[in-house]
Amino acid sequence: MSELHDLIATFAAIGATEDGGVCRLAATPLDRAARDLFLREIGNRQLVPRIDPIGNMFGVALLEPASDEVVIVGSHLDSQPTGGRFDGAYGVLAGLCAVQALGDRAVANPGRARRNLAVANWTNEEGARFQPSLTGSSVFAGSLALAAAYACKDGEGIALGDALAAIGYRGASELEFRPVRYVELHVEQGDRLEHAAADIAAVSGAWMTRKMSVVFEGEVSHTGPTPMSGRRDALRAAARAIEALYGEVERENAGAHAAAARISVFPNSPNVVAGRVRVWFEVRHENEAVVLAISNRFLDRIEREAGALGVAISLAADEHRGTTLLDPVGVDLVRRVASDLGLKALTLQTVAGHDALAIQKRVPACLIFVPSQGGLSHNPREFTAPDALDKGYAVLVETLWRMVTAES
Amino acid sequence: MSELHDLIATFAAIGATEDGGVCRLAATPLDRAARDLFLREIGNRQLVPRIDPIGNMFGVALLEPASDEVVIVGSHLDSQPTGGRFDGAYGVLAGLCAVQALGDRAVANPGRARRNLAVANWTNEEGARFQPSLTGSSVFAGSLALAAAYACKDGEGIALGDALAAIGYRGASELEFRPVRYVELHVEQGDRLEHAAADIAAVSGAWMTRKMSVVFEGEVSHTGPTPMSGRRDALRAAARAIEALYGEVERENAGAHAAAARISVFPNSPNVVAGRVRVWFEVRHENEAVVLAISNRFLDRIEREAGALGVAISLAADEHRGTTLLDPVGVDLVRRVASDLGLKALTLQTVAGHDALAIQKRVPACLIFVPSQGGLSHNPREFTAPDALDKGYAVLVETLWRMVTAES
Repeated sequence: MSELHDLIATFAAIGATEDGGVCRLAATPLDRAARDLFLREIGNRQLVPRIDPIGNMFGVALLEPASDEVVIVGSHLDSQPTGGRFDGAYGVLAGLCAVQALGDRAVANPGRARRNLAVANWTNEEGARFQPSLTGSSVFAGSLALAAAYACKDGEGIALGDALAAIGYRGASELEFRPVRYVELHVEQGDRLEHAAADIAAVSGAWMTRKMSVVFEGEVSHTGPTPMSGRRDALRAAARAIEALYGEVERENAGAHAAAARISVFPNSPNVVAGRVRVWFEVRHENEAVVLAISNRFLDRIEREAGALGVAISLAADEHRGTTLLDPVGVDLVRRVASDLGLKALTLQTVAGHDALAIQKRVPACLIFVPSQGGLSHNPREFTAPDALDKGYAVLVETLWRMVTAES
Repeated sequence: MSELHDLIATFAAIGATEDGGVCRLAATPLDRAARDLFLREIGNRQLVPRIDPIGNMFGVALLEPASDEVVIVGSHLDSQPTGGRFDGAYGVLAGLCAVQALGDRAVANPGRARRNLAVANWTNEEGARFQPSLTGSSVFAGSLALAAAYACKDGEGIALGDALAAIGYRGASELEFRPVRYVELHVEQGDRLEHAAADIAAVSGAWMTRKMSVVFEGEVSHTGPTPMSGRRDALRAAARAIEALYGEVERENAGAHAAAARISVFPNSPNVVAGRVRVWFEVRHENEAVVLAISNRFLDRIEREAGALGVAISLAADEHRGTTLLDPVGVDLVRRVASDLGLKALTLQTVAGHDALAIQKRVPACLIFVPSQGGLSHNPREFTAPDALDKGYAVLVETLWRMVTAES
């Protein structure tokens, strides 16, 4: 599918980093460049363009104009600062090609299509610049209010609503069709398909993730003469908490994943004991009880340990993303399609968040993985071989065709 | 001395923060505003203005035009992000008033002054925006090359040389007199004067400080699906190192001071395991062997602990500021003056860095402390009572008069 490979290469050039990766944060000028190109590609394929108020972009193929229903296929064009070429872009661009291909197939098979088909690019999936992540898909699903999404601020205090307006993607044209199914094709970002030498995963659901943003409040003072016993060092308390998180995960010994990957320090001067520090923590596991046990014990422990340093803690954000069950009908369909195409398929749970998980709250959603070499992702060396991309694309096209032609 | 109190209040308004402190980082537009006002005050007092290439500012009173010698009194007008109203500004503004007062006294006592007198404002004492600190005074003393000072970069990658040019303070008029003594009046920033109910400290020397900037090099990856055992988490290694620093200080149990107060994390996204982290560490003690024992053990330990996480460490900067002996003649003079004025004086060592320590490498330097309420500094609540400020000013004026009138 050389058109798809060419599109992936073309989009990877927008925000390309020297080490072969992509840095294209949501609602930046580079994101605008990718959006502008995507809009042109929508137009080139005679799809109907739509941009909604949170900047989600759609290109609709009217396969059955008499129907008010639409099947949506999509993913995201924003990236991490150290993003790879495939994360998100693969799903959007494979969706774009698939919508065009099925438009042609519908013309060649008049009367077969029973509903319309649209490709989507969801705003700020990554959550690198604005938290929470999955912003556009959550607004679309109705689980995040538009005003709350607009108010999300980046590290410089710029609101998402203003950033979208600045790049010209605070749209006014909602998708006017009733979504009945959602499909997302994505790279796995883990190594289970590779280990099993499988081609395709039908994703049945997602691990629970708890994301806690903790503020440590101490007091600024001079790093030199201030007596050590008189310091209320917020960075020391935060450092202890980071180590405590991993300690609690290891103590539980249940295979949970956890991370502390973002920190902000005030005033962050080498000569001033930190007065206020914020750290973003997360804990993930397939069993919600495990996530809650680890994270609650962690919060109790860091409050106690920070208190011993004269540092108070508070939760600035505490997001519980419960385990999600994706549409079982979709899992069966993907497995059947893979089998019909002679491909080896697994059924997996996803550890990472994806727009499909947010969309599932409104529309039955289906998530398809292809292998990631070495399980590496959010890394410029993220890689999936062209042949593996093509197998995923073939499954996507056939899955979508069965969805748009199905009786219900 | 209401003129001095008024000047302190006027300068505190430039970069005033809501909580009563001052944020006036070196070579910013606010620093320019303070410098512009200082230049006007120099002119108002008929002092000869000089601005050297690193932006140090001087106002010279020609008490004895036939002499090529000058006694310099000064400190700094830049502040920490969470600076107080007195740190630095007190010394510069007391110096300004003292130079004017002694000009009048010289006129009233013709033939007494044997050399000239100048007030100085040194560039980037704080090292909050550009590291290393004490930049202007180190260039003046010849221990830091001008080109190296110009090349210091802030967190945004802006070089100090460019920042000074941008605010119009990359001067071309070196001080043309031969400095023979330097005097600096400063708030203590510790609580020893307050505990001893003393008015004045004659500072005899400084603790050693070792400042180590350590880079932790891991690998970016997705915080979700990446297997925990496959991560090379630079922030986790940095957090362990911060706690290790305090652990080593406590284990040595010798009263050393230490801090980790600045950190930079790449990419600092909540969803990407940190690939590269830099932390600024420091250890201080009056005994150099103690500083070296703690810091060398610390570096060995964090290399081992980071290595166990697959993270490599390297030293981006390693500054050894040895113990400094200030001019003993100055200590005796300050103690004699204090005694003559009926004030209680202590002899202390300074834990914090001051321009006087840098200047001592070229010119015999003298450092005078007044009490800091609660020992609090680099904090908006930093406070010294007006009466205590006046006592320090009286000691400064008399000390300077004896220096400019002494036979040698």
